[in-house]
Amino acid sequence: MHEPSSVSSTAMVRNIAVIRVGRAGPELDSAVVEEPLEIRLQGRPFAVVMRTPGDDRALAAGFLLAEGLIRDADDISAIEHCRHPATPEVHNVVNVFLMGEAVTSLRARLDMKRNITTTSSCGLCGRVTIDSLKRKLPRLAISWRIKRDLVAELPTRLRSRQRAFDSSGGLHAAGLVTPDGRCERSAEDVGRHNAVDKVVGAMLLDDEQLPLSSHALVVSGRTSFEIVQKAWIAGIGLVCAVSAPSTLAIDLAAEAGITLLGFARDGGFNVYSHPERIKL
Amino acid sequence: MHEPSSVSSTAMVRNIAVIRVGRAGPELDSAVVEEPLEIRLQGRPFAVVMRTPGDDRALAAGFLLAEGLIRDADDISAIEHCRHPATPEVHNVVNVFLMGEAVTSLRARLDMKRNITTTSSCGLCGRVTIDSLKRKLPRLAISWRIKRDLVAELPTRLRSRQRAFDSSGGLHAAGLVTPDGRCERSAEDVGRHNAVDKVVGAMLLDDEQLPLSSHALVVSGRTSFEIVQKAWIAGIGLVCAVSAPSTLAIDLAAEAGITLLGFARDGGFNVYSHPERIKL
Repeated sequence: MHEPSSVSSTAMVRNIAVIRVGRAGPELDSAVVEEPLEIRLQGRPFAVVMRTPGDDRALAAGFLLAEGLIRDADDISAIEHCRHPATPEVHNVVNVFLMGEAVTSLRARLDMKRNITTTSSCGLCGRVTIDSLKRKLPRLAISWRIKRDLVAELPTRLRSRQRAFDSSGGLHAAGLVTPDGRCERSAEDVGRHNAVDKVVGAMLLDDEQLPLSSHALVVSGRTSFEIVQKAWIAGIGLVCAVSAPSTLAIDLAAEAGITLLGFARDGGFNVYSHPERIKL
Repeated sequence: MHEPSSVSSTAMVRNIAVIRVGRAGPELDSAVVEEPLEIRLQGRPFAVVMRTPGDDRALAAGFLLAEGLIRDADDISAIEHCRHPATPEVHNVVNVFLMGEAVTSLRARLDMKRNITTTSSCGLCGRVTIDSLKRKLPRLAISWRIKRDLVAELPTRLRSRQRAFDSSGGLHAAGLVTPDGRCERSAEDVGRHNAVDKVVGAMLLDDEQLPLSSHALVVSGRTSFEIVQKAWIAGIGLVCAVSAPSTLAIDLAAEAGITLLGFARDGGFNVYSHPERIKL
């Protein structure tokens, strides 16, 4: 059941166009590839995991072990990729065929009917197929613009509101900023998705009008699919991150009409989508 | 529905005992607090989110917005903490009472019966109550020890096997290392949990005997509950991370019999649990 190490480093990263502001560099940058992997058990959709392609069979096996569905290799009859006929180059579905006790255990689990719907902070829970990942949302049409010097300051403004970061080194932060640079809300959490949920949820509870079309979202870490999706759902037109975006974050931001900024640090930042919202 | 900002920075971090190796510093360190939040809808368990306490009502509201269960504050009748009678100081359950269309929408969602069980890379999916988070596993009894100089080198050894990190800045890595310092497996992924699933799953598929009692797990990022739980399930007795652990990671490692190391960089590291496995 050995999977040959067939994944080259080029498959894990993708060249993407970038506008660099306040720093020099080429017009192409590399972003880590993020794609959904649909894990099917006995041919039926079971879970979707957002991952970087490569070692997919191992990922499925390790995931099922951690989930308690298998105990060792003897529980697996076969693990194989299922190519989608329309896009044969994308290997985003893995079929796992269980055998022996694992089949009984799976049946028991599916029979529990615990009203399981969602969990964790990923914003994607409850989805078992790739098709169900994307919400049908209108493209954002937001006309405000923000000065480049102000953008470069956003991480510092967020950082100055972080209460616990320096002592633990383990907290993510998220903030909601107005186009004139005022940080109206901020929150910290061990999970970056939670920090975003906290600031958006706080606005909602304060009877602020959603969508938050006059706010930008600043996050202390990386940007992946869920962060951009959460911004889109909240109607936020600009996401500024201190660290790297994934390919799916960039693609979704472009589709959503969201300006996605990354590596906002040391006075500069990179623009990955919709630069029209930045006054250069 | 405004939630007063009652959370002090001391509630978001906790003082923990630490042994510093190869660097100076006090015997107490701060770790970010990680605890489960159980979100109940109409009184019934709906989802568990691993989070840092604070702004819990906002977190629940933002989470439900992102999940598509509510659209604005009008969908919420009340959000309130439920104190557990045995531990009144722990506010880890939030009751959300929906009203209007949100109730209909919830019913429709629960009626879908889509065999939803789990998703995302968090290793906790499918859990809807705090009680169901922990798996019943025996404490690990592992007798091997590893030299401190070797431990200090582990992140460098893992890094040397990372193929894509330098070009994208967005990849996490995980590696399985033997006590004599050989890195037998490594994997990279946009999600740190996936990287761990990939290396453990690869061992499983190669018919390697689980538990992996003669291996240490090295991870490039932070350590939270799920990482330690995945190590425990795989039978791995030592977890070495380049960055910070959460309080729950430390507590679980202590309970599991796992040696948990953090901030392994610049030739030093911190020991958070079971130092007996390090030859100092």
